[in-house]
Amino acid sequence: MKVKVAVAGASGYMGAELLRLLLVHPHVELVAVTSERLSGEPLDSLYPHLRGLTLLTFDALDPERLARAVECVFLALPHMESQKAVPVLRRHGRKVIDLSADYRLKDAGAYATWYKTPHADADGLAAAVYGLPELHRKVIASASVVANPGCYPVGAVLAIGPLLRAGLARGEGIVIDGKSGVTGAGAQGRKVDPMYLYTEANENLQAYGVAVHRHTPEIEQELSGLAGRSLTVAFTPHLIPLNRGLFTTASVPLAKGATTADLLACYREVYAGEPFVRVLPEGRLPTTRAVAASNFCDVAVVADPRTQRAVCLSAIDNLGKGGAANGVQNLNLMFGWDERAGLEAPPVYP
Amino acid sequence: MKVKVAVAGASGYMGAELLRLLLVHPHVELVAVTSERLSGEPLDSLYPHLRGLTLLTFDALDPERLARAVECVFLALPHMESQKAVPVLRRHGRKVIDLSADYRLKDAGAYATWYKTPHADADGLAAAVYGLPELHRKVIASASVVANPGCYPVGAVLAIGPLLRAGLARGEGIVIDGKSGVTGAGAQGRKVDPMYLYTEANENLQAYGVAVHRHTPEIEQELSGLAGRSLTVAFTPHLIPLNRGLFTTASVPLAKGATTADLLACYREVYAGEPFVRVLPEGRLPTTRAVAASNFCDVAVVADPRTQRAVCLSAIDNLGKGGAANGVQNLNLMFGWDERAGLEAPPVYP
Amino acid sequence: MKVKVAVAGASGYMGAELLRLLLVHPHVELVAVTSERLSGEPLDSLYPHLRGLTLLTFDALDPERLARAVECVFLALPHMESQKAVPVLRRHGRKVIDLSADYRLKDAGAYATWYKTPHADADGLAAAVYGLPELHRKVIASASVVANPGCYPVGAVLAIGPLLRAGLARGEGIVIDGKSGVTGAGAQGRKVDPMYLYTEANENLQAYGVAVHRHTPEIEQELSGLAGRSLTVAFTPHLIPLNRGLFTTASVPLAKGATTADLLACYREVYAGEPFVRVLPEGRLPTTRAVAASNFCDVAVVADPRTQRAVCLSAIDNLGKGGAANGVQNLNLMFGWDERAGLEAPPVYP
Amino acid sequence: MKVKVAVAGASGYMGAELLRLLLVHPHVELVAVTSERLSGEPLDSLYPHLRGLTLLTFDALDPERLARAVECVFLALPHMESQKAVPVLRRHGRKVIDLSADYRLKDAGAYATWYKTPHADADGLAAAVYGLPELHRKVIASASVVANPGCYPVGAVLAIGPLLRAGLARGEGIVIDGKSGVTGAGAQGRKVDPMYLYTEANENLQAYGVAVHRHTPEIEQELSGLAGRSLTVAFTPHLIPLNRGLFTTASVPLAKGATTADLLACYREVYAGEPFVRVLPEGRLPTTRAVAASNFCDVAVVADPRTQRAVCLSAIDNLGKGGAANGVQNLNLMFGWDERAGLEAPPVYP
Repeated sequence: MKVKVAVAGASGYMGAELLRLLLVHPHVELVAVTSERLSGEPLDSLYPHLRGLTLLTFDALDPERLARAVECVFLALPHMESQKAVPVLRRHGRKVIDLSADYRLKDAGAYATWYKTPHADADGLAAAVYGLPELHRKVIASASVVANPGCYPVGAVLAIGPLLRAGLARGEGIVIDGKSGVTGAGAQGRKVDPMYLYTEANENLQAYGVAVHRHTPEIEQELSGLAGRSLTVAFTPHLIPLNRGLFTTASVPLAKGATTADLLACYREVYAGEPFVRVLPEGRLPTTRAVAASNFCDVAVVADPRTQRAVCLSAIDNLGKGGAANGVQNLNLMFGWDERAGLEAPPVYP
Repeated sequence: MKVKVAVAGASGYMGAELLRLLLVHPHVELVAVTSERLSGEPLDSLYPHLRGLTLLTFDALDPERLARAVECVFLALPHMESQKAVPVLRRHGRKVIDLSADYRLKDAGAYATWYKTPHADADGLAAAVYGLPELHRKVIASASVVANPGCYPVGAVLAIGPLLRAGLARGEGIVIDGKSGVTGAGAQGRKVDPMYLYTEANENLQAYGVAVHRHTPEIEQELSGLAGRSLTVAFTPHLIPLNRGLFTTASVPLAKGATTADLLACYREVYAGEPFVRVLPEGRLPTTRAVAASNFCDVAVVADPRTQRAVCLSAIDNLGKGGAANGVQNLNLMFGWDERAGLEAPPVYP
Repeated sequence: MKVKVAVAGASGYMGAELLRLLLVHPHVELVAVTSERLSGEPLDSLYPHLRGLTLLTFDALDPERLARAVECVFLALPHMESQKAVPVLRRHGRKVIDLSADYRLKDAGAYATWYKTPHADADGLAAAVYGLPELHRKVIASASVVANPGCYPVGAVLAIGPLLRAGLARGEGIVIDGKSGVTGAGAQGRKVDPMYLYTEANENLQAYGVAVHRHTPEIEQELSGLAGRSLTVAFTPHLIPLNRGLFTTASVPLAKGATTADLLACYREVYAGEPFVRVLPEGRLPTTRAVAASNFCDVAVVADPRTQRAVCLSAIDNLGKGGAANGVQNLNLMFGWDERAGLEAPPVYP
Repeated sequence: MKVKVAVAGASGYMGAELLRLLLVHPHVELVAVTSERLSGEPLDSLYPHLRGLTLLTFDALDPERLARAVECVFLALPHMESQKAVPVLRRHGRKVIDLSADYRLKDAGAYATWYKTPHADADGLAAAVYGLPELHRKVIASASVVANPGCYPVGAVLAIGPLLRAGLARGEGIVIDGKSGVTGAGAQGRKVDPMYLYTEANENLQAYGVAVHRHTPEIEQELSGLAGRSLTVAFTPHLIPLNRGLFTTASVPLAKGATTADLLACYREVYAGEPFVRVLPEGRLPTTRAVAASNFCDVAVVADPRTQRAVCLSAIDNLGKGGAANGVQNLNLMFGWDERAGLEAPPVYP
């Protein structure tokens, strides 16, 4: 007996990746898909790759109707929109996996500061769980609302986290450089902006959101939780000319002398048993290629004795572990299935 | 009870794609993988994307040993090499799916002409079946040796075939323009040639093998079979800056006046029931995007009344329907499984 | 004493390329630049690459004012717009190099057929000269209005022309496959259309405008002129994932047996003395790389005795010889300067 | 009367860019070009883009002969090779612009440490001047040997330098993230390594040389010079899928509170009058696009009050300001020409 699910906001790249995964997930049946703009259109009018694989049509978003039709809803909506749908879905006892930013910051004040608008669903926010399984597996399993993390926070927290948890890092002076393919980096919604034109993004490379990117407080929240004290990080995101892939390079001051082998031992212990985090052997470094179209996060750490810093590196697919696939991992946890269900396909190479 | 299979010549891109598919195929167990160069190395030393997904190591190729270990062998070897392995495997009664060019041309003389060397396995050649399911499904099902088609022939034959089969096309003056991503186009073996350097292939576009490409006789063999008479085609392949994707544009003289709707009706009839050929509705054109990492072939045809020609278009993934995935479809036919087994994952977008 | 020039419609890629060339042309002074949308803005607000290289601002288009300010105007406007400006500029005796399609087809009826609207400037059309120097050098030199050719016609006519001029080709059955980077292919105007998003065009490949592309009658007009009789061609354009570059692959039936060497001898004779057409030696094939950011057209021809056809290949930069640089070559001819003036910079590699 | 120059080691990408610039430089005549591998071949056998633009052939490297033939030699050789040629050229009184790493580190001990081999030309090293005009213009003008900087150091020093020079930054905790296109990043020599294959580098993103990259001591040498005390930096380079372009993101602790406007005022003062450094207005950020194929370095700086750090950003073309074009700027200084000579062409967009 398959669980009925829906995807709200399926006309963006994150929604598309959810469809790709959910259409062949062994335990779910995708029964509804929404898009305001495309309401009434068959899925394959927007997505020719899905021709012949589904007979669904886009509907307009109606949370009440969704709540009656399905047990679990993925929200791939712009932020501010999720806050309208979640209260309705919760009232009906439906599970929600929200891929927007609306339920990620536990501090409503921080939300208001970074998103320039007050949060409208305090109850939902209190109930929501930050959906990074490697940190919050247990509470995710029993949550009704899971806030699926932003792509940069996934990469940064998995790359740096073990150092802070183990007390190997100092909390000041952490610098994080994020590099995202174009399906992340603000273009998830297939936004038609000149910056994202092929002719502009191809053979080009740039930073954006310098010192003001909204994933910053999310990274700080989770790293602070791991460190047991409040941390501030310097985070700079970049737009890279590739479709999928998010690479994180973090420079973290070490609390005391440590070799690369010491640091890797710590990472291996922290991530032992994790199905989707691969700590690379010494001498190997992550590449976004190796995780493309998958839920893997490949991680490496290198000690730099010259600077008394560690270089923490991770690679994810921004639509995979950085979004939709991680959302499916959350789904699996919430319904008690094998965490790998629907996520077994190896990364696509090349 | 899973069927044991092996992949010989797994260090090229076609081999890598076979591994990606076979590691999660529901009915097979991948038990051996060969590479002369990497013998003794674990798979993930070459393929970091497979880290954690297999414990296999590369072996040197030993057909006798493979024959004892598995029921079916995929050969992703350079041409001339398959001819050495196939007789051994046949003697042991093993099934073979050969992705090289060695068993594709039924005429050993044509092989000698185009490959500049005589064919060494006349018996195998007589037994081999051309592995394009849409044309030869029945004989594939009972074959011991299947010659998996070249990528350009798959694209060309599926694009043009219905016109010839239905007598709608004239046999003279067929012009075929093939455009392949870099994993095809001679670089399947991860050959380290300056032409395939990023810096050379990126932001570049060129023809190659003009008037002498070895897929030409293969296209002519299959189209001639469909037309019921011997045909010659003008075929020009091109190297396009993308990893995966093969697009075919064929210009075919029409035997008599016909509209696009007429031609599409013919295509829909020919491909009715085909699980992996999608005839697009009038007004829609194929893109390689829509078939990436899948076994689909998307096809369109447009009548041009000005020139009394049809424009026949198809898009495949050169590693998918143009190679490894089509090989898995052949495997499914040879073992009597659902033709879609292991090939259900939607194309990867974007 | 430099000649004052203006560029109308400078916010598209063709306009941008004109600016790049004209700002350092030894004989001209760029004094005015227009864009409706950006009127009043400094050039570097749209074009950060030009920061510090010019103090010009965009103006709204006012043909009367331009006519008073400059001796020569480049029009990089959408078609239909040029027809409004040209009569004004001609009345003032100004020279015009029009990069739109408005003055390319000598037959106003053909214009109406392909552009779905009647032509509004019959006088201008009668006066206009088709601006391909290799065919019409003399008349360009004395023309007041030069219709700069479309990018596909430049590639096709230079690739095929010599065969027709020399009577080596038959006129029936010519098939032309055009492949353009994204700055051509309809995106010249920086049009923000989903098809041209990075995420959509990258790692993708597709045909467009099948059997209806408006460059078709332009190709036929010029090839018919060379052949001395009316020809029809089958032309299919494609969108290729690179910024600049246009590759033409034409299959042309030969009138009689000929070797590649025979054909090349003809090409070398036809193009002897041409400063920007490079006929490659036998065994070499064009690449778009080798002509990037230049006014070169590299050409090769190969005889295929199996099909009694020639494969004619050319590579240009669609913004170079396929547009702006060819426009500057026309400018040089019209003012009696060295044809190479301002076009001496080697292609950019890689 | 033009100055005769030569390029030794012209078969790599840096050499190719020198050829592109020198062939049209108004004050020089390129009379010799060397490559061991291609000795005797015409330039256009390797470089089809130069067909028709030069009649030169590659020679084997013979410093004595070069010294007799030219006044100035560009060395685009692998490190260790320059050390053999420089003493000969100096003995003959020839000027040398060395693009290798051999003469960049003033401390021979640091050279030995980072390059794992002792330096063989102490005299040359003592005479050599670090060729970053923005820092060392005067001594370059009278130097006989100029060590052209590495690409990452150019980007990092121009991005960070003003803060250190003005005492606005603290010296500890500087973190530099470098991102290079594939023509840099170790592939300058057209090295045929799997990492640089199209199929591997395309749609991929990775760090390399973590904590051990040889540009690190070069960055530290120059920043220390500006700061007036010895600094250590944490530097991590990355390989980005584009041909040209190098982007630097540096996080620098501020010595005291400062606004973005304060920092920009400092940058504008430091770079006032610099012909090739463009300090962007507040709110604008650099892109590699805007400097492609040019000698420009675009710079921005943003204060982050949350972290008391500055984010310093720069974009260069790694073959331009990061190599060959900067070398031409040095040439111009050494011969007393206008610094812009031969470098006036605007960046290529797009």
